[in-house]
Amino acid sequence: MKTIQQSKVINGVDTMALNQTVAAIKTDPELAQFKFRAKNRTIHGGHNQSEVKEFYGAKQEHRADKEPFVLDNDEPHVLLSGDVGPNPVEYAIQALLGCMTTTTMYKAAAQGIEIESIRSEVEGDIDLHGLLGLDPDVRPGYQEIRATLRIKTKGPADKIRNLYRFSPVYDTLSRPVPIKIDVQFED
Amino acid sequence: MKTIQQSKVINGVDTMALNQTVAAIKTDPELAQFKFRAKNRTIHGGHNQSEVKEFYGAKQEHRADKEPFVLDNDEPHVLLSGDVGPNPVEYAIQALLGCMTTTTMYKAAAQGIEIESIRSEVEGDIDLHGLLGLDPDVRPGYQEIRATLRIKTKGPADKIRNLYRFSPVYDTLSRPVPIKIDVQFED
Repeated sequence: MKTIQQSKVINGVDTMALNQTVAAIKTDPELAQFKFRAKNRTIHGGHNQSEVKEFYGAKQEHRADKEPFVLDNDEPHVLLSGDVGPNPVEYAIQALLGCMTTTTMYKAAAQGIEIESIRSEVEGDIDLHGLLGLDPDVRPGYQEIRATLRIKTKGPADKIRNLYRFSPVYDTLSRPVPIKIDVQFED
Repeated sequence: MKTIQQSKVINGVDTMALNQTVAAIKTDPELAQFKFRAKNRTIHGGHNQSEVKEFYGAKQEHRADKEPFVLDNDEPHVLLSGDVGPNPVEYAIQALLGCMTTTTMYKAAAQGIEIESIRSEVEGDIDLHGLLGLDPDVRPGYQEIRATLRIKTKGPADKIRNLYRFSPVYDTLSRPVPIKIDVQFED
């Protein structure tokens, strides 16, 4: 009797491929190491532009031949620039939503739990006294971030509720990350 | 004798407006309070889409009548999705570059220091053992982030070198942020 291997897609995720990935990493932990990258250049004032392209993972380079994703950062008029794109702190909190959503979709799929949709909102507080150096007790970054995830599902809430805690961006924002900055000068 | 007020633009930044902003905040600290926002919805699998639009700052709402900025998050093929956009952890590190760049440009401008351009690159390490829950000692997020800023300027390096430390995204990533997540379920 033949076994027919079916690709079982849950939440848009190929769970067979996901299980194979997990099994492969258990056999060869090096497959789990990823390096993500971006580069950026100034355009004018608060406007600068990033390119996202190559990354390393599962022991190889990826996207070498692909056109880069191009992202414009700018500041709104009240922050003295042209508002041609979201500003960096807006990019950061949208990344939080995207990452918690994807993490929840994938990890629910791995347990066979179907999720129909996730909608989410986020708001974060920044006090310019920090950025402007007007008060050393005020941090430049977000003082607090609040998000709501609205998960449409018939699955068990208790197995879904805390999956977002595995989100890499949630972890990156909520816990300190060692960051090394090398500043170089050119004439 | 009349004083002619000239708008003095340095690094693309109107430094007179910047000085006026700082003076206004010193008079009325509430002007420094900003709330940035985003919302997101699932599309399919690892693909979800964010909108960035309204924010609050300087005691008023902004961008109410503007079309939202639309940002696609996706995962690359090796992470089992369609690669139609950067993934959330890529968005997070491009935001770091954009924010350190803008912060350096603005704060140099405030000191009258001209910067011709800034180019930058970033790379960060993620070990999927964290996200996949395969090792409780491995964090899901970035283990380390390394960036290089290449600043083209004739200005004094010692006054420019550490300006990035005032970057809100640098601060947000390098120090822990209180994050409150409300998970709601819908049928």
